[in-house]
Amino acid sequence: MTCDFVKDTSEKIARMEIRGAGRIARAAAEALMRCAETSKSKTAEDFLKELEASGNILVGARPSAVSLPNAVRFVLHRIKTSDLDLPQLRELAIETAADFIDASKKAVEKIGKIGARRISSGDTIMTHCHSTAALSIIKTAFNQGKDIQVIATESRPRYQGHITVKELAKNGVPVRMIVDSAARIFMKEVDKVIVGADSIAANGAVVNKIGTSQIALSAHEARVLFLVAAETYKFHPATVVGELVEIEERPAEEVANPQEFGGVVIRNPAFDVTPPEYVDLIITEKGVIPPQAAILVIKEEFGWAIPH
Amino acid sequence: MTCDFVKDTSEKIARMEIRGAGRIARAAAEALMRCAETSKSKTAEDFLKELEASGNILVGARPSAVSLPNAVRFVLHRIKTSDLDLPQLRELAIETAADFIDASKKAVEKIGKIGARRISSGDTIMTHCHSTAALSIIKTAFNQGKDIQVIATESRPRYQGHITVKELAKNGVPVRMIVDSAARIFMKEVDKVIVGADSIAANGAVVNKIGTSQIALSAHEARVLFLVAAETYKFHPATVVGELVEIEERPAEEVANPQEFGGVVIRNPAFDVTPPEYVDLIITEKGVIPPQAAILVIKEEFGWAIPH
Amino acid sequence: MTCDFVKDTSEKIARMEIRGAGRIARAAAEALMRCAETSKSKTAEDFLKELEASGNILVGARPSAVSLPNAVRFVLHRIKTSDLDLPQLRELAIETAADFIDASKKAVEKIGKIGARRISSGDTIMTHCHSTAALSIIKTAFNQGKDIQVIATESRPRYQGHITVKELAKNGVPVRMIVDSAARIFMKEVDKVIVGADSIAANGAVVNKIGTSQIALSAHEARVLFLVAAETYKFHPATVVGELVEIEERPAEEVANPQEFGGVVIRNPAFDVTPPEYVDLIITEKGVIPPQAAILVIKEEFGWAIPH
Amino acid sequence: MTCDFVKDTSEKIARMEIRGAGRIARAAAEALMRCAETSKSKTAEDFLKELEASGNILVGARPSAVSLPNAVRFVLHRIKTSDLDLPQLRELAIETAADFIDASKKAVEKIGKIGARRISSGDTIMTHCHSTAALSIIKTAFNQGKDIQVIATESRPRYQGHITVKELAKNGVPVRMIVDSAARIFMKEVDKVIVGADSIAANGAVVNKIGTSQIALSAHEARVLFLVAAETYKFHPATVVGELVEIEERPAEEVANPQEFGGVVIRNPAFDVTPPEYVDLIITEKGVIPPQAAILVIKEEFGWAIPH
Amino acid sequence: MTCDFVKDTSEKIARMEIRGAGRIARAAAEALMRCAETSKSKTAEDFLKELEASGNILVGARPSAVSLPNAVRFVLHRIKTSDLDLPQLRELAIETAADFIDASKKAVEKIGKIGARRISSGDTIMTHCHSTAALSIIKTAFNQGKDIQVIATESRPRYQGHITVKELAKNGVPVRMIVDSAARIFMKEVDKVIVGADSIAANGAVVNKIGTSQIALSAHEARVLFLVAAETYKFHPATVVGELVEIEERPAEEVANPQEFGGVVIRNPAFDVTPPEYVDLIITEKGVIPPQAAILVIKEEFGWAIPH
Amino acid sequence: MTCDFVKDTSEKIARMEIRGAGRIARAAAEALMRCAETSKSKTAEDFLKELEASGNILVGARPSAVSLPNAVRFVLHRIKTSDLDLPQLRELAIETAADFIDASKKAVEKIGKIGARRISSGDTIMTHCHSTAALSIIKTAFNQGKDIQVIATESRPRYQGHITVKELAKNGVPVRMIVDSAARIFMKEVDKVIVGADSIAANGAVVNKIGTSQIALSAHEARVLFLVAAETYKFHPATVVGELVEIEERPAEEVANPQEFGGVVIRNPAFDVTPPEYVDLIITEKGVIPPQAAILVIKEEFGWAIPH
Repeated sequence: MTCDFVKDTSEKIARMEIRGAGRIARAAAEALMRCAETSKSKTAEDFLKELEASGNILVGARPSAVSLPNAVRFVLHRIKTSDLDLPQLRELAIETAADFIDASKKAVEKIGKIGARRISSGDTIMTHCHSTAALSIIKTAFNQGKDIQVIATESRPRYQGHITVKELAKNGVPVRMIVDSAARIFMKEVDKVIVGADSIAANGAVVNKIGTSQIALSAHEARVLFLVAAETYKFHPATVVGELVEIEERPAEEVANPQEFGGVVIRNPAFDVTPPEYVDLIITEKGVIPPQAAILVIKEEFGWAIPH
Repeated sequence: MTCDFVKDTSEKIARMEIRGAGRIARAAAEALMRCAETSKSKTAEDFLKELEASGNILVGARPSAVSLPNAVRFVLHRIKTSDLDLPQLRELAIETAADFIDASKKAVEKIGKIGARRISSGDTIMTHCHSTAALSIIKTAFNQGKDIQVIATESRPRYQGHITVKELAKNGVPVRMIVDSAARIFMKEVDKVIVGADSIAANGAVVNKIGTSQIALSAHEARVLFLVAAETYKFHPATVVGELVEIEERPAEEVANPQEFGGVVIRNPAFDVTPPEYVDLIITEKGVIPPQAAILVIKEEFGWAIPH
Repeated sequence: MTCDFVKDTSEKIARMEIRGAGRIARAAAEALMRCAETSKSKTAEDFLKELEASGNILVGARPSAVSLPNAVRFVLHRIKTSDLDLPQLRELAIETAADFIDASKKAVEKIGKIGARRISSGDTIMTHCHSTAALSIIKTAFNQGKDIQVIATESRPRYQGHITVKELAKNGVPVRMIVDSAARIFMKEVDKVIVGADSIAANGAVVNKIGTSQIALSAHEARVLFLVAAETYKFHPATVVGELVEIEERPAEEVANPQEFGGVVIRNPAFDVTPPEYVDLIITEKGVIPPQAAILVIKEEFGWAIPH
Repeated sequence: MTCDFVKDTSEKIARMEIRGAGRIARAAAEALMRCAETSKSKTAEDFLKELEASGNILVGARPSAVSLPNAVRFVLHRIKTSDLDLPQLRELAIETAADFIDASKKAVEKIGKIGARRISSGDTIMTHCHSTAALSIIKTAFNQGKDIQVIATESRPRYQGHITVKELAKNGVPVRMIVDSAARIFMKEVDKVIVGADSIAANGAVVNKIGTSQIALSAHEARVLFLVAAETYKFHPATVVGELVEIEERPAEEVANPQEFGGVVIRNPAFDVTPPEYVDLIITEKGVIPPQAAILVIKEEFGWAIPH
Repeated sequence: MTCDFVKDTSEKIARMEIRGAGRIARAAAEALMRCAETSKSKTAEDFLKELEASGNILVGARPSAVSLPNAVRFVLHRIKTSDLDLPQLRELAIETAADFIDASKKAVEKIGKIGARRISSGDTIMTHCHSTAALSIIKTAFNQGKDIQVIATESRPRYQGHITVKELAKNGVPVRMIVDSAARIFMKEVDKVIVGADSIAANGAVVNKIGTSQIALSAHEARVLFLVAAETYKFHPATVVGELVEIEERPAEEVANPQEFGGVVIRNPAFDVTPPEYVDLIITEKGVIPPQAAILVIKEEFGWAIPH
Repeated sequence: MTCDFVKDTSEKIARMEIRGAGRIARAAAEALMRCAETSKSKTAEDFLKELEASGNILVGARPSAVSLPNAVRFVLHRIKTSDLDLPQLRELAIETAADFIDASKKAVEKIGKIGARRISSGDTIMTHCHSTAALSIIKTAFNQGKDIQVIATESRPRYQGHITVKELAKNGVPVRMIVDSAARIFMKEVDKVIVGADSIAANGAVVNKIGTSQIALSAHEARVLFLVAAETYKFHPATVVGELVEIEERPAEEVANPQEFGGVVIRNPAFDVTPPEYVDLIITEKGVIPPQAAILVIKEEFGWAIPH
């Protein structure tokens, strides 16, 4: 009873052909939009059921991706709380999905603008891994003519820092690259740390690439501002109902060839959790908030999630 | 006026053919011993001058190696403060150098024994880089039948952690390897961190492989004991007279191929400095001391170094 | 002009026949319900006056019990802001009181479910005193098959910890009991502390059994998660208007026989205040919030309380 | 097209004839009120345009004064979101401006009442500089018969502390005066610090007279409560969209005669920023909030400020 | 070959008829003294062997009592490093043992005098458990006419605090008694905490009655001075050679009747370890030292203890 | 029985004609020297008694000046522990006093040399009040060609900072002056804080001009190195025997005209105490020590001071 677009999209998400919090969220919204356009449901009720079923399939494609249920809930919440006939409902569904896609696309740009206001000429900024939102801030500030420079970690095991430094160097931003374990020694030259986020929990804890919490700790020790750039669809409503954020363990091969290391267990957690007391501000497309106000964003977007 | 052994040894030290704090110190003591054996000086005075000149050459071979002047000063101090004729002096010089070599060789073993008393069955120990003294403690405790396990970092950029985990696995010690930036996330499973030291300053600050201070900070945050294994010849008398510890910058090539990273400055400091408030104990071959008592060891071994 | 039920209930509350935040709150709501059912008021206006007068009597029975005015305000607020005739008003009052009673009864169970999601298999949990809500979390997690164990303090002077350990042992939960002053020494084995609350202030400070803040401090030192289980009627709206939380002093006899201790003043404060920076999360029946968001809960339930 | 009152008022604000956050805000509201009374606009649309243009002129008179745009936005927001004809609109504008003026005048008194509830008999209170709101709390508590005493800094360079101590002494409050650098040594006698604020940012950071953050740090070290008294029009909505708070540099002459100090640069920043982790509570006329809930006040008063 | 006094004394120590660090140490010294007086050895060599054998028996009577080997080592060290004939040796042994006994007896009084200089009129002092040395300071200060008062914990499970408060009340010192878990809430009234010690480790860590470290943590949080009163024979030379301090587990019966608590494990560790960063000063009969200088005292009394 | 020089000098010290720790100490040593030269004692015993009596008079001239008894004890200790006849004793007394004077004069210069090694080109240094030893370090580093700059506080109430900035400007050192309460806001630009000391206690606590501890706290918060420049005669042996450091209260007139401030108590403590955990290093003429090793310096110079 659900449409082909949904199946196709959910498979691509499951196979990780579609990756990245933003792309996943937009693909899900688009699938629901196409589904609404082509639905053959005869009544508003059937139409709603069809979209809900489609939403469930999409959410099931990668249960750990926070942005996926957020996108689905955004579209369904608006149409479920309306009181319209079928043609109007179809129109609303299409419009709502389009709104989400549009807002999501503009979010990074808005974060860039809002965050850049926090950057002063003369700042040295440290970043970790590769975050589109964090780079949006840095590049916007640089393009505004601010005299800034960047220190980026290589970000073992997958060296996403290499992408970051190349992108910055291409844009003309003065940039230094260091090994991850040198972050503390360079912290005394740093004015601000800016990183992205995989998701943000109800208490403002930031889930991000392994090593982030260690840099946050060093920044806290040195009283360097620690800023997180995150679209609102990264906020994690399930944590409000008590759910823990699961930390993904990735293949040992990313770290070293296990066959050369007989008798050694190679561990490779992909993320870590930065506690809110080490985060100064979260920069979203809706404005700048302290981590303790994450609950406010979650509540405003998704309401109190009362468990059943 | 100095002997060939000294020239030969100092060249090997300069070319880094002889490497490692212990080996350098013993080579210097040995050169002085051979020098004393073969000296053609006719008077005690000439003999002393010859040995002092030899000592200066040796010290100049690698001025940043703390153990080198410590070895030379140890030998010269004893013969300069004696009041003997030439044959006796020669004998004393040979004996003193032999004493130093012997004590240096046994130091790692003694540190192993003393440190192992701090390890309890059930402990999980984190280590960083590759330290003979730290491994001596771990292996001694394991061989005493204590049920322990180890978490070791890979230690970018030169992966000395690979040597550590292989050596431990070969000895049958259960060991896990992680990337450097995962140290904080695993800290909650750790009971003790044990690392080595390149040198220890007058205030108890520990100079060691880049990343050490970051792990110390994480251990401090989690109130995990942070232990440093260091022979007494690692203590840094020059810091008493105000000298700063210089941090060596190593080639960018160790981190990444600079040619692939046009416009990016690759920085590669080899060491960092762990402040004494993050160090619980320093384990030496003379016993266990808190870092603030480093001055006591330095003073006892080398006296107050009053500047001229 | 107020009904008998109200007098009877308020006397029982004053004499502490009815005790415990939840029971007090439900008794007050029930009194108002009975009052509404039997009211002989002739107009909506009189009916409202009667209920308000009843509410004031109930609140006066034990002014320091936070849940009491919260229950009264919940019922009155809804009927005062409606615009109904007498029969409808009566019905609404009865329904609202019933809603409150129902929600209050289910709150502990919901807290159990939400909180249990935060418990992982392998966790060691410390608790203090005897809290139904905290035990609901522990028992729910245990009944879900999670392999957990508990360390409970005896909770001098009244040994409520004895009730806690017996209840847990009866349920099959592995449990250890310690004296209160041993909490810090066992903290290194603990993964999470879970306690209840007598009330929660506008800034997220937690008022609970004497000794709670000391355990929170030890947990904070060891970076162990400190969780508070609290129904929303424990939130303290009066603190928003600046009022201090008064700490009750209980009889010296609970601590020791004063007659044996001539010349010694025996002090026995019943509660202490845990500052919000030592609290990681508050688990309510509406979800999980950081302490700094307590104001959000208070505001949502009771509005900004502007002083007159 | 704007009225004379606006020009006149904005000039007085620019020349600093009208000074102080409260007076500036009320003057701006009054100018808009007079403008509305005398407007010759023929349509509701023109009337709105005229008021908006007037608002822009007022805001431009001293862009760094937070209370100024807050007052203007308060008046305009209500009339812009209404849907009225010209006479009604005029009436609403007049009424809204009057409301603002009234609330602003009463704010200090309300803060005094709310804050005084936090003061206990026996308290020693430290204050810094001269804040009407902070003094309102102290005087209210004293007039309630509470046995309190005050320690006030002299507040270099402009000695506003002199005004504070004289005002308190005149009211009979026991008061001691100290140099600014003695704050820490007296902190051990202090129960609460109460200061005012120039503005409060989205993350709860408090911008206030130079030296405030140093006292906050000493209070935090000694775990002395640090309270900030601030009217809601001090909250800084622009910081939500990322803007930094600029710190005004005042003339060197306030510190010392520059001509006597050839070769010396005299620096004189007027304010500093106290980070939210050193602030226990902010006392507003709407109630007591933790600093992390500043965003809540800003949001409630001005909505999310999404950047364009 | 050893004398009866030694057997007798060591049995009494083993059966805990002789208890308390000071009494044990003096009994051991006395046994050696009696042994020396009555020895039938014919040569100095035999005499030394006899005393050493006696020392070993005494030390073995209660291996965990730090003061026991300290007393034995004190006596033996002096006679072993002398070069005397039998009659002189006998005399020296007797004299040395008498010296030790005398110094030990006077130590508490000297600690009282030195420590009392740190007490100011007006001070409120918190103490825990029952320590002769700590009480010596308090009573000396009080007898000097200083206006002081004391807050003492009851010290579960064995209520040694009862002895403390009765002794203080008998001496006329104003004293309050609280349950152990109320220590933090009263800390804000306290100027100094003074406790005794069971032993002090090489890094200045203080081993004392369970609960001490929790009070030290609260004192540290409130920046209240934390002073430890300890005779030098409490210093723990074995910790210099890496040995851990074993924490004695006492019978469950002291906490509660195990038969009433089926399924509950009752844990009862007798001591805890206060880390040196929470200790401001250690007051010995030789003067006042910071904890990090414990190594200095150990070294001066017993020399570097190099492991074999 | 004591000589005129002693009376004269002690009167000048008492009248504060001779001021400053160094000048006082040298004047006392000189008085003893002149006394020794002119003594008419007939026996070594009488000579010693005469010098001891003279020493007591000198010490009594200003009991709170730490350097005064230190100078006297230095001279007397050496002659009392010798075993010489009168002419030799006289010579030794003269020589010892001359040694002390010479060492004292050179101490500041040596501190300058040792401390300058800690200064790197590019450093910004903050200082407080006016300290000859601290300025010696700054000027030595500057004269070595290091590119440094200084931020100095004005140092209310007596503006000794004015002397500091003028002296530095005259020497060409780039220098900024700020009010005392601006220290924290400038700390983020500072690499090292260097101050002098009035005296240093047994636990490494630093007694210095009011405001020092506040700057130390800000430096600690920002992890800026805090260095204290102090000659060894500033170390406070009396604190070893438990004595408290008394903080001098200076005239209210230094702060403000009391007649203008009726009803206001003006408090003016001259010094404060910086706890050792905020001090990174103490730079003496004998080398660089951590504050916890202060006891080592005191012990080496004056021995353990056992109370009688």
